[in-house]
Amino acid sequence: MKTQFYGASSLDGFIATPDHDLGWLLQFGEVEGSSYPAFIRDVGALAMGSHTYEWMLKHAIDAGQPWPYAQPAWVFSSRTLRGIPGADVRFARGDVQPVHQAMVRAAAGRNVWVVGGGELVGQFYDAGLLDELIVQVAPVTLGTGAPLLPRRIKQPAALRLQSVATLGGIFAELRYAVQRP
Amino acid sequence: MKTQFYGASSLDGFIATPDHDLGWLLQFGEVEGSSYPAFIRDVGALAMGSHTYEWMLKHAIDAGQPWPYAQPAWVFSSRTLRGIPGADVRFARGDVQPVHQAMVRAAAGRNVWVVGGGELVGQFYDAGLLDELIVQVAPVTLGTGAPLLPRRIKQPAALRLQSVATLGGIFAELRYAVQRP
Repeated sequence: MKTQFYGASSLDGFIATPDHDLGWLLQFGEVEGSSYPAFIRDVGALAMGSHTYEWMLKHAIDAGQPWPYAQPAWVFSSRTLRGIPGADVRFARGDVQPVHQAMVRAAAGRNVWVVGGGELVGQFYDAGLLDELIVQVAPVTLGTGAPLLPRRIKQPAALRLQSVATLGGIFAELRYAVQRP
Repeated sequence: MKTQFYGASSLDGFIATPDHDLGWLLQFGEVEGSSYPAFIRDVGALAMGSHTYEWMLKHAIDAGQPWPYAQPAWVFSSRTLRGIPGADVRFARGDVQPVHQAMVRAAAGRNVWVVGGGELVGQFYDAGLLDELIVQVAPVTLGTGAPLLPRRIKQPAALRLQSVATLGGIFAELRYAVQRP
């Protein structure tokens, strides 16, 4: 069982534009050889921040698409957000540690996926709960936006490169094992 | 003959900390399987910005190390900077286009290397002069600092991934062909 960040980034380290537009990413569509089907099969619980959740409400749910996850999803927010009928969405706030314990129990041996944004990934890192970073680097620079991981992690063995691969000749997928700080 | 950026970046897209410290990078030393010897052999002229040059003055030349390049190097600066005895350093300012023409002539069929910083790389990109980006992604996040390439380049074919490789099991080297804007 691992706690993982898995997601796309621009070459210059942003996961979204300042106005939360994902067009730069979605333009590539589903790439051949995507690692997502194998990845999501092993996920037993998800965590996301309120911006990520609200992006999905607006761009997926309100556009008539189904909630994409069968696994229980925890949404971290200090605000009260609406749920989604038929979706196992649980709201949380504050320290990630006790919520992570509940996620691990729910995952029952499968992995915990911290979907994003970067600040939430950083909170899991700070708490010593992050085991892996799996980043699909898109062939794009954004110049500014929401950062992948707004932390300074520069000890020599903090992130250990496990593998690199190309996905569909478009994305470079980098996998890192995270040493707990 | 190509005009190339070649250099290291943190995973979150920075080439230096805000105080121009490179300790996060230099801690890894010379990695096994470095692509640098083969790269520099094909370089016939270099360009760098004033911050990069002043970093080298302070950390290499003033520390008693020799200037590392046999090729002519153009330093872009609006200020008057000191030269280095025995080094072929030429100062330039303003538009990169005419300087690039002089560099191409000097390179005599070999490549032109835009060493950095990111703003100078961006100026070569803006002028339609950049052919390749070769980035060694270090297993480090900096959170803030000098950006790799402070531009928004998000057209789907603007950057085409040519290859990915690991260097010494530490760096992920990503190579992109750049479509002129």
